[in-house]
Parts: sequence; C-alpha cells; structure tokens
Amino acid sequence: MTVRIGVIGTGMIGEEHSRRITQTLTGGAIVAVSDVNAEQAQAVVERLGLDARVYASGQELIAADDVDAVLVTSWGPTHEEYVLAAIEAGKPVFCEKPLATTAQGCRNIIDAEIEAGKRLVQVGFMRRYDSGYQLMKEAIGGGRLGEPLMIHAAHRNPEVPERYVTPMAIHDTLIHELDTFRWLLDDDYKSAQVLFPRKTRHAHSKVEDPQMVLLETVKGVRIDVEIFVNCRYGYDIQCAVVGEEGIAHLPEPQALQYRQAGKLASEILQDWKKRFNDAFDVELQAFIDGAAAGQIGGPSSWDGYAAAIAGDVCVKAQESGAIEAIEMPERPAFYG
Amino acid sequence: MTVRIGVIGTGMIGEEHSRRITQTLTGGAIVAVSDVNAEQAQAVVERLGLDARVYASGQELIAADDVDAVLVTSWGPTHEEYVLAAIEAGKPVFCEKPLATTAQGCRNIIDAEIEAGKRLVQVGFMRRYDSGYQLMKEAIGGGRLGEPLMIHAAHRNPEVPERYVTPMAIHDTLIHELDTFRWLLDDDYKSAQVLFPRKTRHAHSKVEDPQMVLLETVKGVRIDVEIFVNCRYGYDIQCAVVGEEGIAHLPEPQALQYRQAGKLASEILQDWKKRFNDAFDVELQAFIDGAAAGQIGGPSSWDGYAAAIAGDVCVKAQESGAIEAIEMPERPAFYG
Amino acid sequence: MTVRIGVIGTGMIGEEHSRRITQTLTGGAIVAVSDVNAEQAQAVVERLGLDARVYASGQELIAADDVDAVLVTSWGPTHEEYVLAAIEAGKPVFCEKPLATTAQGCRNIIDAEIEAGKRLVQVGFMRRYDSGYQLMKEAIGGGRLGEPLMIHAAHRNPEVPERYVTPMAIHDTLIHELDTFRWLLDDDYKSAQVLFPRKTRHAHSKVEDPQMVLLETVKGVRIDVEIFVNCRYGYDIQCAVVGEEGIAHLPEPQALQYRQAGKLASEILQDWKKRFNDAFDVELQAFIDGAAAGQIGGPSSWDGYAAAIAGDVCVKAQESGAIEAIEMPERPAFYG
Amino acid sequence: MTVRIGVIGTGMIGEEHSRRITQTLTGGAIVAVSDVNAEQAQAVVERLGLDARVYASGQELIAADDVDAVLVTSWGPTHEEYVLAAIEAGKPVFCEKPLATTAQGCRNIIDAEIEAGKRLVQVGFMRRYDSGYQLMKEAIGGGRLGEPLMIHAAHRNPEVPERYVTPMAIHDTLIHELDTFRWLLDDDYKSAQVLFPRKTRHAHSKVEDPQMVLLETVKGVRIDVEIFVNCRYGYDIQCAVVGEEGIAHLPEPQALQYRQAGKLASEILQDWKKRFNDAFDVELQAFIDGAAAGQIGGPSSWDGYAAAIAGDVCVKAQESGAIEAIEMPERPAFYG
Repeated sequence: MTVRIGVIGTGMIGEEHSRRITQTLTGGAIVAVSDVNAEQAQAVVERLGLDARVYASGQELIAADDVDAVLVTSWGPTHEEYVLAAIEAGKPVFCEKPLATTAQGCRNIIDAEIEAGKRLVQVGFMRRYDSGYQLMKEAIGGGRLGEPLMIHAAHRNPEVPERYVTPMAIHDTLIHELDTFRWLLDDDYKSAQVLFPRKTRHAHSKVEDPQMVLLETVKGVRIDVEIFVNCRYGYDIQCAVVGEEGIAHLPEPQALQYRQAGKLASEILQDWKKRFNDAFDVELQAFIDGAAAGQIGGPSSWDGYAAAIAGDVCVKAQESGAIEAIEMPERPAFYG
Repeated sequence: MTVRIGVIGTGMIGEEHSRRITQTLTGGAIVAVSDVNAEQAQAVVERLGLDARVYASGQELIAADDVDAVLVTSWGPTHEEYVLAAIEAGKPVFCEKPLATTAQGCRNIIDAEIEAGKRLVQVGFMRRYDSGYQLMKEAIGGGRLGEPLMIHAAHRNPEVPERYVTPMAIHDTLIHELDTFRWLLDDDYKSAQVLFPRKTRHAHSKVEDPQMVLLETVKGVRIDVEIFVNCRYGYDIQCAVVGEEGIAHLPEPQALQYRQAGKLASEILQDWKKRFNDAFDVELQAFIDGAAAGQIGGPSSWDGYAAAIAGDVCVKAQESGAIEAIEMPERPAFYG
Repeated sequence: MTVRIGVIGTGMIGEEHSRRITQTLTGGAIVAVSDVNAEQAQAVVERLGLDARVYASGQELIAADDVDAVLVTSWGPTHEEYVLAAIEAGKPVFCEKPLATTAQGCRNIIDAEIEAGKRLVQVGFMRRYDSGYQLMKEAIGGGRLGEPLMIHAAHRNPEVPERYVTPMAIHDTLIHELDTFRWLLDDDYKSAQVLFPRKTRHAHSKVEDPQMVLLETVKGVRIDVEIFVNCRYGYDIQCAVVGEEGIAHLPEPQALQYRQAGKLASEILQDWKKRFNDAFDVELQAFIDGAAAGQIGGPSSWDGYAAAIAGDVCVKAQESGAIEAIEMPERPAFYG
Repeated sequence: MTVRIGVIGTGMIGEEHSRRITQTLTGGAIVAVSDVNAEQAQAVVERLGLDARVYASGQELIAADDVDAVLVTSWGPTHEEYVLAAIEAGKPVFCEKPLATTAQGCRNIIDAEIEAGKRLVQVGFMRRYDSGYQLMKEAIGGGRLGEPLMIHAAHRNPEVPERYVTPMAIHDTLIHELDTFRWLLDDDYKSAQVLFPRKTRHAHSKVEDPQMVLLETVKGVRIDVEIFVNCRYGYDIQCAVVGEEGIAHLPEPQALQYRQAGKLASEILQDWKKRFNDAFDVELQAFIDGAAAGQIGGPSSWDGYAAAIAGDVCVKAQESGAIEAIEMPERPAFYG
C-alpha cells in the first residue's frame, strides 16, 4: 500500500523532500531518482540510505513500472515537460513552483490534465498547508471577519544572492503570495501595480529592493504586499486581513520570549525552510495520501496557471509603472 | 508671568482646551472667550468656572488688551481670518487644523507671518507631541533604522456620522498623517494616489470606506495609509517605519492584558480624544511656554500649508483614480 | 520493519494513541488491543478500522507472539502489573502516567528493568516533546540564561468534574510539572510546600482550588507553580525560567491575533489534548522508533519514580501545611 | 493661590521633586529649602533658578511663615521628626518613604495626626499614581476579575551597589509592593515568608539575591513577589492579579517594537525614575492640589505604618526562614 515515488531533480529541495518522505512521513517510499547530474542523484541515494534506482532521465523514471507517483523538483524550465509526461503516463505528480515558466506552459498542462480526465497534478504552494494560514482561511471562511476588504502583507528575506534580479521578486518571491491570496479569498486578480520605494543600500545593483505590489481582486479586495529581500533582520512573512467586522493577523512563528540585555525579545527566523518546515510535511503527506487514494487535491494546475498569469502581469507592471489589468480566462468546470 | 489666553470657538474642542489650560497645564489662564453662539461661550465660562470675559466676536477678543495669546478652535472656514487678525495684532496664535480651508488661505497666513517678522502661529497637529510618535522620531533621527524606505500606516475609527463624506477622509482624517509623516521623515510629498477597496457594508452611502492612500516623498519613501472610518472595532492608529536596518512599530496604547473568557486580550480605545489626550496636554503646554517666552515652535504655518497642498492633491487623486503629482513651492528661509 | 503494537486500555487516551499510530505516525501498527470492557475494545477496532485482535486480558496481549511492543493506557492502578509483565516478556512498553500509583510500585518496575538489563520503559510525560518546552530546554542547556535560579509556572484548566479532589491537583495535574522541571533543570527536588489561597467560588466542595506549590531543588532553584483547575478562561500552561543572565518565557500556543469588537485578542485553548497534540505525536513516534531500533529513550522508569516520590511529598505538604523534605534515593548508574 | 512649598533634603529625589514642581506641575512654588549640606541646598536653588530661601535646619523651614506645605526628602532616619514638626505646625507634609524607619515612629506620627484632627500627611508611595496600576485598581474594583485570589509579582533592578544588603530588599525594594498590594486589594497582611533561591553570581557578598517573598492577606489572597536586584537585564515591575473570573497583567511600559537584527524586540527600561516618572508628577500634583484645598489624600500615615509593620515581619522572616504572622492593630476610624 506504500506509494512508490520517483524524484526528478535531486538538488536541495529534491533531497529535502526525499528526506521527509523517507524519515518523517508515512505511506511513501522513494524508489527512483534522476538528476541532470547523475552523480548528485547517486549521492542523495547514499546520504539518505534510499533503496532507489538512479535513472538517466526524468522520462525514463516516469515510465518505470514501479514508480507510482512523481515529484518534480528539477530546474524550473524543465517542469513542464516532466509534468506533461507524468500526466501522459497517468501518474500523480507533485510539481514544485513554478508549474511552468510561462502561462502557456501551464495552459498546456491544464489541457493535458483535462484530457486525462482526472486531477493528477499538485503544485508546491506549501503555504496553504501552513497552520497559521489555515487558521486565517478558517477565520475568513467562517465569516468571523465579515467580507474581506483589504490585505496588508510583507515578504521579507534577510538577503539574496547576486543572481536575484528585479523580476525574481515576482517569479520567485511574490509567487507564493499570488497563490495564497487567491486561495484565502476564493477570488481572482483584476489588476496589478508595482511601486519602487527608495532602494536599500544593501541591495545588489541588479535588483530593485524593496518593492510594493498592489493587487486588486475581482471582488474588489485591495492587497498591498511589501517585497523586501535584503531586509537584513530575518525571514519574515506578514499577513493581515482587514474585514468588515475586524482584522486578523497571521501568527508569528513560535519562539521563546526573552527578557535579556535590556530587551523584551523573541527571535525571528532567518531561513524560509525553517519557517515552512511543518507546512512542507503536511503538503507532501497530502500528496502521498492523495496518490494512494487516487484523488489528488490541493493547489491545482489551474492555481499554478493563475499564479503564472498574475505574475506575468506584475512583471509587466514593474516595467511600465502603470496599473495593469489581469485577465484570467474562465475556469474550466474541471477545476470546480 | 501667566499667559492670558483668549479662546475663539467654544465647541467641544475649544471647551476641552480651555479645561486643560485651566485645570491641568501651567502658566496659562483663559481670560476671554467668544463663539458664534454667545450663550454657549457663556455656558463654558460657567461650567469651567473661568474668570473670563465673553466677547461678541473673535476680532474683538483678539484686539483686547489683556489677551496675550489666542486659541482658534472655531469652525474651519473661519480659521484664516482669525489667524490673520492675531498675526496683525502681533499675538501668538494656536490654530486647530485646518490652518485654512484652502492652500491659498494658508499661503496668505504665511505671507502675513513673514511680514510680521517672527513666528506667531502654532498649528494643532498634536501627533507630534504624542510620546509614541516622539519615540519613532528619535528612532529615525538617531539612525537606528538606517534610511527610511517605507511607511505602512492605518487610521481607523469605529464609525463616522452621516455628514462624513468621501473627501473628509483626506481633510479630516488623513490630514494628521500628512503632517506626521513629513515631520517624521523630514521630507516632502511628490505624488499621491488613492485606491478604493470594496466598500464596507457599515459605511453610509456618501462615503467610500475604506480607502488606501499611497504617497511618495521627494526622497523616495513610499507610504501606504489605510483610512477606515467605519471599522467597527475601535479607534486605532498604526504606523510602521521600514528602514534599511530594521522596522519600528508605533506602540499600542497602554492597556491591561487580560486572560479571560477564552481570550488573551487587551482593550482597544474607542475615542480619539482619549488616544491623544496626553499629546494635547503637551501640545498646549508647549504653546503656552512658547507664548511666555516669545518664541513659538512646533508645527508652523508652513506645515499647515504643506498639509493643505498635499490634502488637495489627495482629493484630486480620489476623483481621478490616477497618480497625481504634489508640487510644493520652495520653503522660505523663514521656516528653515 | 513495522513495529507491531498491542494497546492495553482502549479508553479515550488509548483510542487517541491508536488513532495517531494508525493515521499519523510512521513505522507502527496496532495489531492487538484489550480492555476491561471487551466491547469497547472491539468498538475501537471498528472505529479505526484496525487489523487487530481483541485479547481477553492485558497479560495475554503481552504474551502474544506478534506483539512487538506494548502501550499501557489502562486505569492507573493496573499500570504496574502490565509494565512488569512487558518487562518480563522483554518487550518495549510505553506507559501513560502514572507509571505506578505508589512510589514502591515504580521501584518494583525499576528493579525489574535493571534486572532485565536494558531500558524497556518509556513513561508518558509528553511535555518533553512539546516544541516550546524543547526550546526552553535548549535555552537552559545552551547557557543563554546563565544558571537557572527560579521557575514561575502555572497549570490552569477551565474546570474539573466533581470527582476531582484536592490530592488530584498533585497526582493528575502537577505530575507533569514535576517531571518537566527535573528534566528542564537536570536537577532533583529537595522540599515542597503547598499554599491554599482563598478558594474560587467556581470550585466544587471537595477541591481546594487554586493551590500554590513551592518546590526547592538540590541545586537551590526555587519553583512556584499555581494550580488552578477551575480558572474558567481556558487551558493555560505558563512557565518562565529566571536565570542569572535573563528570563525565558514559554511561547503561547499559535493563534491568530484579532482586532475586533474593541479588543486586540487571541484565543486561548480550552482543551489539553489540543495543547499537546503535536507533543503526543512526537512522543509516540519516538517510542515506535525506539522500539524498532531496540533502544528506548525519553522519560524513564526512574523519571516516573522521581515524579511519584515528589508527588507523594506534595500531597503530604497539602495536608501538613509545612515545608516537607523530598528525599530521592541515589540514581542507579543504569539510568545514567 | 499658589502653594508655597519648603523642601527638606535636596539630594537626588529632593532636587527632582523641586524641578517637577517648578517646571512641570501647576499651583506650587518652592520658596524654601534646607539640607544637612547647606551648600548643596544652595546649589539646587541655583541650578533650578528657584526664588527660595535656604534654611539652616528643617525645623526652621517648617516654622517659616511663608511655607504653606512641606516636602520631606531627607535621609530616612530624619523623616519622623520633620513630619511630626510639620503636623505640629499644622502644615501639610509630603514624606518620601519610609514614613519612619520604625513602626513605632510611624505610630507616633499617626497619634500626632489624629491629635491634630485632620489628615496632613501624604506618604510617597507613587505607584498608586501610576496609570498602569490605576487600570489594575479599576479592574479589581469594578469586579471584572471576580474576587482576587492570587498576585504574582516581580520587582527587578539591573544591579545594586555594594551598600545594598539583604534586609534592604524589604525596606527599600519590597516596601513599594507592600503598599501597592494593600491598596489594590483593599486588604491587610496576615503572614509573610521569605525563600532564598540559589544566589546569582552577579550579587555582592552581603546580599542574598534573588529572594521570593510570600504574603498572605486577611481575605486569603496569596501573593508571591520575586525580588531580584541584580537581574542584569533591566528595571522591570511585573504584577498579575489572578481572580475568580480571569487574570489581569500590568502593562509593559510604552516602547517601540522593533524588527531588527534577528529579533522582534522592545526595549526594557533601566531606570526606576523613568519607569515612574509620570506617577511622580501625578503624585506631587495631588499633594499640591490637596494642600491648596486643605484636604490631603493619597497614601496616609496609616498606610506608611502598615507597610512598616509588614516590612519588619518580612525581615524577621528573612532571618527565621519560617512563616511569620503579621499583626496589624485595628485601624482608627480617623483613617476610615
């Protein structure tokens, strides 16, 4: 009854996910791995003590008889072809964000999945599985806040490497918020605008940092997200939903509170992997359980597509400085 | 050595200020009052047990020999003429906001004050005297946050009466933030934009509520202010300054923290007068001390003018939906 | 490689643990159950869809060939005999608190375990597995607080049923603190004193509530614990460790923070099962992993014995009103 | 109508109070000062620009015709004689704590005051005027917490000088709590016990630090106070009142909250003068107003006496290690 999983891409996140499935989660086993760098794939097998075969290519891995389900954690530009191949093979596939690097790529996946006749794809938007965001979702859904009117949010990293350039603030950073707010609000985006505050002296030359992204939803909710990837002080995810009847703030991550050295203080995390560690567990367990039950849920190809479309418009808004319309195609009944 | 003060306008705020000066503050005495409704002026004299003469008009009050300094707390549209008269008479004048209902009116006051050759006007922007904002000013000035890059703020009231219409969100509500941020940042505004989120069902028909105001400063700081005047839950002023080296949040007002009835909770104030009660004390004491010393400080006519100009552009931005430029004339050396 | 587990006692906690092992944890399977009420045992098998045999007695269950490890979640007075039988059978055994209802009973278990030559018993002190307490343990162990000098703690329940009488404040409630502080401080108790504040009107006639327990450790740390089991407002566990270099407070459980209805508030849990839900998961996973590896860790028989001795003295102190000495026998090298 | 005040003792606190009265408060003027060190008294007159005569002795100052009211801020052992002299002269007198260094000394003052037939003495227990404690008093008085059952409190200083010895933890430090809790609870003490935790390595050789004081009131409220005068991290006053219906915590002093350098932190004060700065203002203003109105209120001689009696028993309990009874004489109707 164990779900036999193949992992395509054994970099940092692929190895982490393999470790989770092997050591923490239940009901899944890694039986196959592949990576553009075969030696690295082999090294992961050894480090984690996996009973897994190393495949020369993702396509072969997907085709293997003993692979029940696929994890795509390879380089972004390769996601589309692997997800399409998994769909073709009729195998459940968990794909790290982005689902594809273009909206059209996402659309191709959607078309294939609809053609296949059942949901096979779960996209790696782990925030939906974070306990704090789940409390927020319940608060909104339960009507406790009345109708949501605004969201104030921030996504801050202590620092980013030289290769992180301005559009990555959207594609690599905001992408999580783009999915999260759609899910929280059960809504779609209508327009985007990007503002560039004075740049921090701690940012590299090729990145505008911080940025302020303004989103408008179809229902009229206004969202402001600060993206600040060289904020120095820590990895910090803030989200407050303002409703007609009150406001709810996302909880701070658990920490001891100290009275020490003249300060009443608690520590702020530095690492996103630690911030969403539990969410990754729940997310992957949901995928394994879904694969075992033949019923994949969670963030769908459609959600990946929606985030891609919104992301593309945000990048356009970065460039134009204008308020840019976001036009979502009609949602197929398939994605209910 | 007591500063003998005349109060023009004995409505709620005029009576409050008279009470403060009489019962709480030091060095000042109310010796003269006037109001468009003379009976009300008389009633205040009696309620507070003042040894004060009731004048038929503000102009007569200003002219009275035994009036050393003037408080203008009358209806907004009358402020300009009384302030001009006080300047003409060479008497220090404290004027509640707005300094004048038009930018040109403020400009007239500035011209008169420069002509008079010394500062005589203190504008009633009491937030500068709030202990929390003063801590914020010190934090910024002391360099602890590095260069400020963004401000996230909110101005929320539990509810507003029927007569409160959309532009009042700027002229009556945002006006305080408009002065406060200029002062905190030692900066001027460059542009404004106003967004209208979905409207709360608790708002009257003639007011868009909430609103989001986006301001850009000359130095490039980006400011977002949520104005939400039917937020239901309380009177709540939020301000976070995001700098290169960290973020500072305005303190919540003092309150007991309860563990009770399933909640860890502290009470939120409902009344702006209570929120800024201490600030009003400090503000008026500063005016009395300044009048006694012949040296008026605090928010100047220029500050009142700057807020008026920015406010007018914000109203224009409410109407246009566009990003509107704010053009401040050059600051005269007089207001150095 | 799955650890085949037998559960003795299928009441609320036995069923909960069976559910965890079956649905949430990894590496274990419930293959046998027994209960003094055989029908209830059968009902649990059905509710959870277990592939488990119902045994007529705990002793038979322990003896069964396909039972690798035992969970004792039966009525307290039966714990001793089942744990002894499991040790006799050489099978790892997880025993809910109390290990035995008398210190002598615990001692009997210790003697049997030492005789058996290896650790087989893990006692159900789940707080050691709570993420907040683990942060506290690290803070103390890492020297960040300097030497610990005092602990201020509270253990509050919203209410207790009629059958909860005064000594249960020790045996059922404080028992967790008695283990937790020994573990946090790596220390033993030297004396105990119990104070009875004015009784709450919400307490039943047979229970003194609240109580204040004062403990002194061998190293000289002074601990005060408020026990308040009809506090009304919620289930609330507080712990602050005061050290030479600062103080650390246990985190509040995760909750949204609301601004609503005049309050800045977060919800307090009402249910201890929810408070320590994650800790139960980690605790039982540790037992399964330990059983699989043939190496049981966590709270030992010795810890169960130490808590029993301290608990007995606390009850004596309840009765005497005096400061009562706690004398711990020397720790056998076996429990290192 | 100005109250003409003479100050006996122009050390740090005497100078501070003179400065307050002169620069911040209303209705009072310092017209006379004396100090055992006449030069220092003269220096204070000059530093503050007082229009005040320097008297050779406190007695002469009290006798001076133009002195309406007296502040006793001299060395503790001299308080009694000056307060008695002021009563004799029929002049309102504000006396810093202690009212007298012995309970008998306090009793002498009480007898004299009753003899004089009206309240003349206000004792310098400033915490009653602290806005946080006043909120607490209201919460208790308003019944919001139900009957109070326990108080958990702490009084921490960053460090104390060499001359601070063990009994000073009571006479100089706890003395404030001793008055505050009587006032908050409207209750008297019944017993005291003192525990000595392990000593911090930061304490000098002549002081046991920290200490835990346990108080029992006549109504049965149990109070624990941690006194920790070398806690290193700051000046920190904690107080939580546990009632039948919930718990209230004293607010933390106002501070900005920072996100900076890996911490979510606010600063803790280091200096008690800053912590109770506003309370001192309100306290002295109340004295001036009371003197002007011929009606002295606030902490009375009886309160000073009660604190002295309780303090003496606490010191006895420090020495005996036992639970010591506190016996308060019956309160004269005079102190209603």
